[in-house]
Order: sequence, then structure tokens, then C-alpha cells
Amino acid sequence: MKPHGPIPPGFAADDDAMLLIGGDRAEALVDAAGDTPLFVYDSAMLTARVAEWRAAMPDAVQLHYAMKANPYAPLLAFMARLVDGFDVASGGELKAAMDSGMAPAHISFAGPGKRDRELEAAIAAGATLNLESAGEADRALSIAARLGITPRLAVRVNPDFDLKGSGMKMGGGAKPFGVDAAEVPALARRLIASGADWRGFHIFAGSQALDAAAIADTQAQTVVLAGRLANEVGATPPLVNLGGGMGVPYFPADKAVDAAAVGTALAETLDGRDAVLADSSFAMELGRWLVAEAGVYLTRIVDRKTSHGETFLVTDGGLHHQLAASGNFGTVIRRNYPIALANRFGIEPTETATVVGCLCTPLDRLGDQVALPVAEVGDLVAIFQAGAYGASASPAAFLGQGSAREMLV
Amino acid sequence: MKPHGPIPPGFAADDDAMLLIGGDRAEALVDAAGDTPLFVYDSAMLTARVAEWRAAMPDAVQLHYAMKANPYAPLLAFMARLVDGFDVASGGELKAAMDSGMAPAHISFAGPGKRDRELEAAIAAGATLNLESAGEADRALSIAARLGITPRLAVRVNPDFDLKGSGMKMGGGAKPFGVDAAEVPALARRLIASGADWRGFHIFAGSQALDAAAIADTQAQTVVLAGRLANEVGATPPLVNLGGGMGVPYFPADKAVDAAAVGTALAETLDGRDAVLADSSFAMELGRWLVAEAGVYLTRIVDRKTSHGETFLVTDGGLHHQLAASGNFGTVIRRNYPIALANRFGIEPTETATVVGCLCTPLDRLGDQVALPVAEVGDLVAIFQAGAYGASASPAAFLGQGSAREMLV
Repeated sequence: MKPHGPIPPGFAADDDAMLLIGGDRAEALVDAAGDTPLFVYDSAMLTARVAEWRAAMPDAVQLHYAMKANPYAPLLAFMARLVDGFDVASGGELKAAMDSGMAPAHISFAGPGKRDRELEAAIAAGATLNLESAGEADRALSIAARLGITPRLAVRVNPDFDLKGSGMKMGGGAKPFGVDAAEVPALARRLIASGADWRGFHIFAGSQALDAAAIADTQAQTVVLAGRLANEVGATPPLVNLGGGMGVPYFPADKAVDAAAVGTALAETLDGRDAVLADSSFAMELGRWLVAEAGVYLTRIVDRKTSHGETFLVTDGGLHHQLAASGNFGTVIRRNYPIALANRFGIEPTETATVVGCLCTPLDRLGDQVALPVAEVGDLVAIFQAGAYGASASPAAFLGQGSAREMLV
Repeated sequence: MKPHGPIPPGFAADDDAMLLIGGDRAEALVDAAGDTPLFVYDSAMLTARVAEWRAAMPDAVQLHYAMKANPYAPLLAFMARLVDGFDVASGGELKAAMDSGMAPAHISFAGPGKRDRELEAAIAAGATLNLESAGEADRALSIAARLGITPRLAVRVNPDFDLKGSGMKMGGGAKPFGVDAAEVPALARRLIASGADWRGFHIFAGSQALDAAAIADTQAQTVVLAGRLANEVGATPPLVNLGGGMGVPYFPADKAVDAAAVGTALAETLDGRDAVLADSSFAMELGRWLVAEAGVYLTRIVDRKTSHGETFLVTDGGLHHQLAASGNFGTVIRRNYPIALANRFGIEPTETATVVGCLCTPLDRLGDQVALPVAEVGDLVAIFQAGAYGASASPAAFLGQGSAREMLV
């Protein structure tokens, strides 16, 4: 038997041991959606999550949603009313963000390799471009001049530090993201001199960290760096985007981030900030932390079989919807995401089984030798922490199985 | 500097150092397709590859194409005229195979987790089902009885051996694929007794191996196993699908499979086969080996930047089209696929650069510290061995960048 990640708090079953999501029975949700596999996103959990963040953080800090985590249109429209801005990473995401009802002035666009047509779409819409290089700045200024629009331009900074313990490091050394800190002041001065609407700094050191102290330390370094850069620029940045960093517990022994501790430390950090930042606004940009827990992936058991004494539960889902849960995206060693039987939820495990997807590849493993109640064909498997980097971050076309259904409840 | 995999033989440049694919200039192909990123598949290389296989293998062995490697419809239609059968892994692939013009009698369907509607579609079409379990056999027989059709049923065998050195092991111990060898005879006898059209055995021990001796050894074991099982069944299997196994050289020091050596050994193996297999047909099922080399992924450099002394070339492509090349699919340690500048092809490398995709994630790396001629914005990067497990096996929706274009030339 191998352990799996912790089931997120707040999920419970009815008297019939059926998992409830947003108060609805999982099986009823599948009926409503028409079939498995299905991603269900619980809007009440999204609301509660944003409220948790706002309670923990200083009032002055804005909350941005990094929509790469989950771009499902109904979820985006819901989040647009909850948060203060969207961060997008492509022209496609920019369009989806605008379609969601988020005002373009509250949309910022980061990402290396922005094409001219993407820069043009953002400038025309009035979104903020987080510039990734001097070359990109030149192209943006040229496009804005041609359009006759004052562009909203921030500089993405490649900081000299990273976020300790983060799953994805985006600072601390040579990176394709942003402009090395040493070159930022000259670029920002050039933007200001060009007549652009300079929006400030975007400083993203890493993501998927669980240690509040590490996140707080990175935020403190980020604010110090922003102050130093602002002094070198000789201007107050209207906004300092502090990046994200807050992760979620996917794996055994992972513990949820202590958001209150992050908030307390951030308040102290901001209280002690350099005078040049006195009138700056601050934002955190979160994706996974906001939406992962609210999502459950439901897939039905199609076959139960024994091979060489091991029990396999074969589902109609798989890595084409849950690449990260299969251990094939950003992790070196495969570990089990939180997993359960949705229609036997809370029942004591009595057997060890391996849950696989329907793809004809040994990579397609959703739960490796996990302890479960005895499962039958027709049972529903639930994978938790499925609200982020699931449906949109998996190879949906692989082996012709098709996309999963999605619903917001 | 880190090495990259070997550029496949047969690719050359014109006098202008522009890579030619199927005799056409890479830049002209991009113009014809409309934009980068673009997968180009060279039909002449597909034809040559199939001819190479037929020259190497005994005449009696059939060639099946495992379409999971590349399901692009024009390529499928082309392959349908070249090979003897298609192997599919889902109802979606079954439909695509039939649309390609391949006769259903030459289509076989393997894959755990086949749903009832997929079993029904295959039985109704007259395709062969490679049964993965006794439970699946029961469902197939029940559906066939309801439809009043004699089903074409083979048994997928989980062999007690694996393919040494293979990237994907699909035998040798507890597996979700097929029926343990010990249980196969009883199941096959039951199929025959039920009146089904028993088609034989499907035995797939692994894939992506480069050592001809290991492949030959596995094929020899497979034929011995098929003979033993057939004797226990008491009937001659009409077809023994020997699986695949032949891989392609992706990484530094990888060497192409010696197909002639595999063929010579297979001829000896078949000459010495058990008498019960005297009238059996044999097939090999290949995906990657048939189509990988014929494909080139072309992506344009959007930005060139320096960070802490390292040069980054940022392209408009990335892991959303080339998940495996980014090191995030089925490999533990990231190594460089074969990579070159398409418009400076064959020119001596004079700098070390890291080629990244446009996704805002540190996972999106196409070439890590590779030696290249000095590249400029607008140059075309070519990733080779891109004909298999590229477009369809990558998270195309991730970050809203959209799918790559594809063309068969």
C-alpha cells in the first residue's frame, strides 16, 4: 500500500456514503452532466477561498487570479466577480478574460514569446503588458505608436532570489522570464520617457510552495527589491505584483499553507516598505491556491481485474485529463494525489488497488496501490485538488478519448 | 553545452542553408501553412520507412500501424494504403481509422477500460477486439448477442516477460493490460465455445527499444508463448500480433534499431515455431518507428534575450505541442531531442543557447544549452523525431496558445 495525498477539508458524504460536492450527490452531478469523466467545480468553495485570502491578507493588497490554472469559462465569469484582476499568459487567455466580464484595465499579460498580434490585442484592449525583455518593450512601443494608443506597460523582473521549497522556481539565476533585476531600472526609465503608462513591476519568484515562512521571506525580498528598483528608476511604481507562491497539498505529508501567517508577515513587510513605495498598490497573483481544492474529477470504473495478485481498477478517465495526477507533469517521482471512491466515501478501506486510466500506456496511473473500500465496476473514483491544471493542462486529444466534461455548481 | 539527439538521416539544406522537408524549403512550408508552429510530415519518408520494414522482415509478417502515435487524418489516409492494418485504442480512434479508408476487418482495438459503447461500435463495424479481461469478454459477448453479430475477438496476453531496455514496459508482472498468460487458454476456449470468431493473440511486451537483440529475444519469447497458449487452447490462432518495440533515437548516444537484424532473427524464430502455429498469420504493430522520423516541428523565434550571461531563444511553440520533447512525458531526466535552426541548417554552431517555448512555466524547455549557429528573432527552430506523440500527445489547450498546424507533404 502507498499513501495518497490528503482529502481536502470540507468534503463529506450523505447517509448513503455518496460524496457531496456543493451539496449535490456526485452521482447526480454525473447524471446532470450526462457522463463521466467529469470535472466539478464548487463555486461555494471558490467564494470561501477568496474570503479566506481576504481575511488573512492586508486590506491594501489586491488579489489577481492567474487564469492559466483553470480557464473554464463559467468559472472565469464567477471569479471575475470575486477577485480584483486577472493575469493572462496568451492572446487566447486575454480574449477569455475579456469575455468573462473582467475589465481590461484589471487584466495583465505576462509570458515570454508574446507575438506581435498578442501585444497589439493587449494594447488595443487597454490591458497591462508585463514586459519580458527589452526586445519585447521595443515591439510593444512600436505597436502602440502605430495604433496611437498609450500602452500600459509594466516590467517583469527576474529576481536574484527564488522561492525556497517551491515546485516551480521562476527566479534566482538565468531564466527565460522577465528582465534581470540589474537591467530593470534603465528599461523602466525608457518606458516612462517614451510616454507609456508605466504600471510598475511584476516579480514572480516561484509557485507551489507550502511553507508560509518561505513565502513570507520571498515577499519581503520582493518588496525590498521593488523599493530598490523604484529608487533607481526615480519613480513610484503604481503597482507591484508580488507574484504567487501559495501552493496546495497534493501529496502525503503535505500540509496546507498557513495563509494567516503569510498575511501577518506581509502586513509587516508592507509596513516597513521603502518610502518610494508609499503610494504603490500591491497585488498577489494566485492560480492553483484559489481553484485547486474546489475541483473534483469524477471517473467511472469500467473494469476490475487481477494481474499477478494485484487488483487493478480501470476507469474511463486518465492522464488525458489529469496529466499531473498521473505523475507526468512537473514531478520527478510519481506520488498519489488525494483519491477516493465517491460512492463509498468515508467507508473504511479494506483492500489495496491500483487505479488506472483507460489509455493504452503504462503512464496512465491515477492511484498506485492505494487503500480503498472494495470497488465494483460502475463505482465512481474521485480525484481531489482537480480544480487547477487539470482539464486544460492535459493532452485531451491523446488516444482519441476526448475531453472531459466540466461543470460549475 | 549539452548534447542533443541525432538529427535523423536524410535531412539536408539547400544552398541557402534552409532545411528541406520533402524537397520543400521549411520557410515555404510555413508560408503555405499560414503560420508557425507547424508539424510537417514527409510522406516520402513514410513510404521509405514502410519499405525499409518490408525489406527487413519476413514476407509472411503483416505490418500494423498503431495510430496512437499520430492520428492526423491525412497521414492516416496515407498510411492506410501502405500498411496491412491499423491498431486503435479508443472509439474515437476506431472512427478515425474507418474514416481513413482502412477496412474494418483490418482494424484491431486494444486498450483497457473500453466502454460498452466502444465495444458495440467495434463489433458492429466488424473490427477485432483485443480483449483485456474476462469481464470485458463477458461484456463483448453480451453486446454481440444483442446485436446478433458474430464478434471478432482476440485475447490480449499479459506476458510473463518484458522487453529489455524498452522505454515503456507492458509485460512482466502485474499490469493493467491484457489477461495474465496463465488465464488465457481458458478464456480463449470460452470465446471459441461461445461461437465468437476467435482471432488469436495480441502480445505486447514493451515499446521504444533500440537494441535489436532485445527485440529479437522478446519476439522469440512471444512466439514460444503463443505456441504454448495455442496448444493449451487446442486451436491455431488465426493471427498472432507480436507487438511493437522498435523505437527511435531521441537522445544523445541513441542509435537507430538495426531493423535488418530484427528481421533476420524473426525469420529464424518463425521457422522454428511450434507446429500449432504453422497456419497462423503474424503481425508487428508499430507506431513511433513508422512515423516519428518523418515529422519535423517548426517554431519561430520570437525573442532573444540574455539572463545572467545565458542566451535564451524564446519561440512561439512549446510543450503544448511537444510535451515529450520538453522532458515531461515518460522520461525522468530531461534530455535534448534533436534540434537545429531550420534556416541555418548545417551551419557550424558558434554559440550555446537555451531554446524555450512561449508558455509561462519553467517546464517549457525545448533545447537546454544546445550548440547552435547564432540565432536571430524570426529564425525557425526545427525539432526532429516529431512525427510521433507530438501534436496529439501534448496539452494543446494549456495557457490558451492553441493547437499547432499540421501538414503532410
